[in-house]
Amino acid sequence: MPEEAFTPSGAQRLVEAAVGAGVEVCFANPGTTELPLVDALDRVPGVRAVLGLFEGVCTGAADGYARVAGEPALTLLHLGPGFANGIANLHNARRARSPVVNLIGDHATWHLAADAPLTSDIVSLASPVSGFVRTCGTADGLAGDVLAALAASVDPPGQVATLIVPADCQWDPAPSQPPPAPRRPRAAPVDEETVASAAKAMRTASSPVLYLGGAALGERGLSAAARIQAATRRPVFAETFAAKVERGGALPWFQSLPYFPERAVEALAGADVFVTAGAPPPVSFFAVPGVPSTLSPPTASHLALADPGNDVAAALEALADALGAPERVVQDPRPALELPSGPDLNADVAGLAVAALLPEGAIVVDEGATSGLGYTVRSPFAARHTTLGLTGGAIGIGLPLAVGAAVAAPDRRVVALQADGSGMYTIQALWTMAREALDVTVVVFANRRYAILGLELIRAGIDRPGPIATALTDLSRPDLDWVSLAAGMGVPGWRATTADQFVDHLRRSLSTEGPSLIEAVI
Amino acid sequence: MPEEAFTPSGAQRLVEAAVGAGVEVCFANPGTTELPLVDALDRVPGVRAVLGLFEGVCTGAADGYARVAGEPALTLLHLGPGFANGIANLHNARRARSPVVNLIGDHATWHLAADAPLTSDIVSLASPVSGFVRTCGTADGLAGDVLAALAASVDPPGQVATLIVPADCQWDPAPSQPPPAPRRPRAAPVDEETVASAAKAMRTASSPVLYLGGAALGERGLSAAARIQAATRRPVFAETFAAKVERGGALPWFQSLPYFPERAVEALAGADVFVTAGAPPPVSFFAVPGVPSTLSPPTASHLALADPGNDVAAALEALADALGAPERVVQDPRPALELPSGPDLNADVAGLAVAALLPEGAIVVDEGATSGLGYTVRSPFAARHTTLGLTGGAIGIGLPLAVGAAVAAPDRRVVALQADGSGMYTIQALWTMAREALDVTVVVFANRRYAILGLELIRAGIDRPGPIATALTDLSRPDLDWVSLAAGMGVPGWRATTADQFVDHLRRSLSTEGPSLIEAVI
Repeated sequence: MPEEAFTPSGAQRLVEAAVGAGVEVCFANPGTTELPLVDALDRVPGVRAVLGLFEGVCTGAADGYARVAGEPALTLLHLGPGFANGIANLHNARRARSPVVNLIGDHATWHLAADAPLTSDIVSLASPVSGFVRTCGTADGLAGDVLAALAASVDPPGQVATLIVPADCQWDPAPSQPPPAPRRPRAAPVDEETVASAAKAMRTASSPVLYLGGAALGERGLSAAARIQAATRRPVFAETFAAKVERGGALPWFQSLPYFPERAVEALAGADVFVTAGAPPPVSFFAVPGVPSTLSPPTASHLALADPGNDVAAALEALADALGAPERVVQDPRPALELPSGPDLNADVAGLAVAALLPEGAIVVDEGATSGLGYTVRSPFAARHTTLGLTGGAIGIGLPLAVGAAVAAPDRRVVALQADGSGMYTIQALWTMAREALDVTVVVFANRRYAILGLELIRAGIDRPGPIATALTDLSRPDLDWVSLAAGMGVPGWRATTADQFVDHLRRSLSTEGPSLIEAVI
Repeated sequence: MPEEAFTPSGAQRLVEAAVGAGVEVCFANPGTTELPLVDALDRVPGVRAVLGLFEGVCTGAADGYARVAGEPALTLLHLGPGFANGIANLHNARRARSPVVNLIGDHATWHLAADAPLTSDIVSLASPVSGFVRTCGTADGLAGDVLAALAASVDPPGQVATLIVPADCQWDPAPSQPPPAPRRPRAAPVDEETVASAAKAMRTASSPVLYLGGAALGERGLSAAARIQAATRRPVFAETFAAKVERGGALPWFQSLPYFPERAVEALAGADVFVTAGAPPPVSFFAVPGVPSTLSPPTASHLALADPGNDVAAALEALADALGAPERVVQDPRPALELPSGPDLNADVAGLAVAALLPEGAIVVDEGATSGLGYTVRSPFAARHTTLGLTGGAIGIGLPLAVGAAVAAPDRRVVALQADGSGMYTIQALWTMAREALDVTVVVFANRRYAILGLELIRAGIDRPGPIATALTDLSRPDLDWVSLAAGMGVPGWRATTADQFVDHLRRSLSTEGPSLIEAVI
């Protein structure tokens, strides 16, 4: 088709524009209505295409990539139903404020009225998880459309942007040169008055609390918060489910606000000034009768030092300066972690072993749920690393996040701490790890139940669940065999039933190139 | 809690009302906001709760149950993200016009304003796949709400109904007696004039075509269509992707309209009258440049004998009578199918073996995609059985449909013909088959690629796909090991690489209680 050589298609223009704007990766699960875009990825070099065998793998991976790289990846998804399979992890990406750009192929514009079997209202599906939704109208517009989506995605603090691309817009010729990529906007600085008010409030309050979220949990933010704490000697809390936290080594560490709202209310009781940096004030994860939705005391005055879209780290540094804090806080040396041994294996033992053996610079993906605590409490004593968490409560993000993190940082070991129940939602991610030979160590905490639901049943006064409640929170009958599941997708795996085995397998996995999995039977 | 014994909770009232309306099954993947409903399932006997480890399993199973039982099952899903995981298969249920009632727990009404992590716009997510969406407001209203949803779901021809149930409405006391269950509406009869017009049109046209869909593909509809064909000697077509087709044994059989629109247009060329029964006129599955969306000739006049919500079988019988058709058409005896043998295994051979060995009364779930044809062309010669198809094009319904069909019909063997690519989307269904000991034979056609996309690339003129297009349509590197995957979820499996092995494994599976899987490497 010689004219194609002279007049690129809309799809080619879209990919050209995306590459020009710096896009390097596309997590894809395409179908027929995306084939011109697939073809364009071959014709326009510059984008690594990573196949997921389920769309939730693609969207979760794009989130993980964004959290680690700080840049948006594309996803390529098939019409409404394909997109729908990616919504749960986009919900998490939205809560993580991750820049992600979804490309959804749709029917040709002239075919929509036929209401063909795969037709559905994609805008209605996309809106709840997207800060930007656009349906493209012409081939010539695609380049500008994707640049607008990319720009929206990185608009501080970051968001999910969704582009619905009809098939004819992809395959039709697009003669116009694409517009230039816009400059990436910077996070807005916090003005001096806000910093001065926060400093004054913290100095004059009897019980001020500093609450950190989002970018405040990076190295600069944490260091500044440590200076503030040194100056005020008042509590500092981190948000409970953070997208990304720098941790370990010589980094300062702050306690996360407890998950159960009664405990969080207790932890914050008596605060008269509540200063937030990088996150809105904390609310209860679920409603609990008799416990307020807002966790800080109603009598505390709230002061937002920095919103998520602000330059949070700079604001914290300015606040530390205003408080006359020391230039630098040197952390007390922390005790080395001692490796567990012996026959007993439980989540605590496994978490300790992970923290003790964690390699410098690792990325820990934490979807350990009730089994993750053993690691979490030891993580400040581990080597310097990054933790990615479950931000939106939509389970099934751990393995996909690990895929995206590993693609973004091929030189870092990724350790995925994975609850078994959650892991089943997007287990297809293991295959992508194998295909892409990603250096991921997957630790599955196999307690064979939805343990959090067991706890919540007790909290709801259902101390003796009946047979149905028991069955619906139980993952046994039959037990999942994670070693077989991993083998089925080309990932080597080992089962550990003792601490000694777990340590052996973990050492082996951490020194194995490509992915491997350890089923910790706890 | 003694007062609870006297004042049931909203959740209990809801379950009471559902049981009173005849609900017997709930496919569930609950979380914290659904626990009062889980508890109510224990307190109010009558509902079998079936756990899925992923929500798409639950929604696809509810669709399969509805198609086989003709009655709605409940699903129980966790907030927006949990529901979202079920959307793709609800899209198929919507296209199948299956009665399904989704119960989605949401945050307590007073907690929504807090915008807690799991909060999202559930109505926006639910609307594209639901004919009925209601957000409950009070505990006392729940019984009436679920009855309204159930009534909407069975309003002919059937639809998906979604009820969003805030947690406080579930746990608050509901003193009022629930209202009585409304009578189930019947399909509207087709009036005599419509039948007479259709008869006149078919008699006077030079080239009338009868097109069957929905309920027309049941035993009564097919028998009536055979009478019509005997009277008119004109072509009769079945819709391409039917929800449920009765087939085999002595049943009449009609060719399905071809999938590729060019072929469908050819098949219908020359028709001057196009009579539909049980389905709207056929449209192209995807847009193809130069091919119209509507497949019947633009010059043909369309006459709807019966809409999907009508009593389609009765209308066809009336039309046969009006055409003076014979009372009964006896099918010519069909040749017996000969079992394949030898070393060569391919989709055609496997399909023939399935058709030849199919037990009387089996339910075949057909998500074989490009590999399914070998079975489909032999199915009229198989024993009397029922086929369930992929109605909405959202792949990943096969294994869940099989779960629902097996729950609805424990005395019938279910045979799931499953393309490998599609099967990966909802592979968690294997675990539910094992837990519930469902008599399902899963045949995985392991061609290790998205073969339909390979075909569509060629059709789009991309004869030599580049490395990215090749990688994104290829399921090898690594190969999926379906025997390991099945074993990981407690399902025994065997791999066949020859026809002889396939026949042996198939015989063994068909005589094995509970689920088993055959990976046919083709």
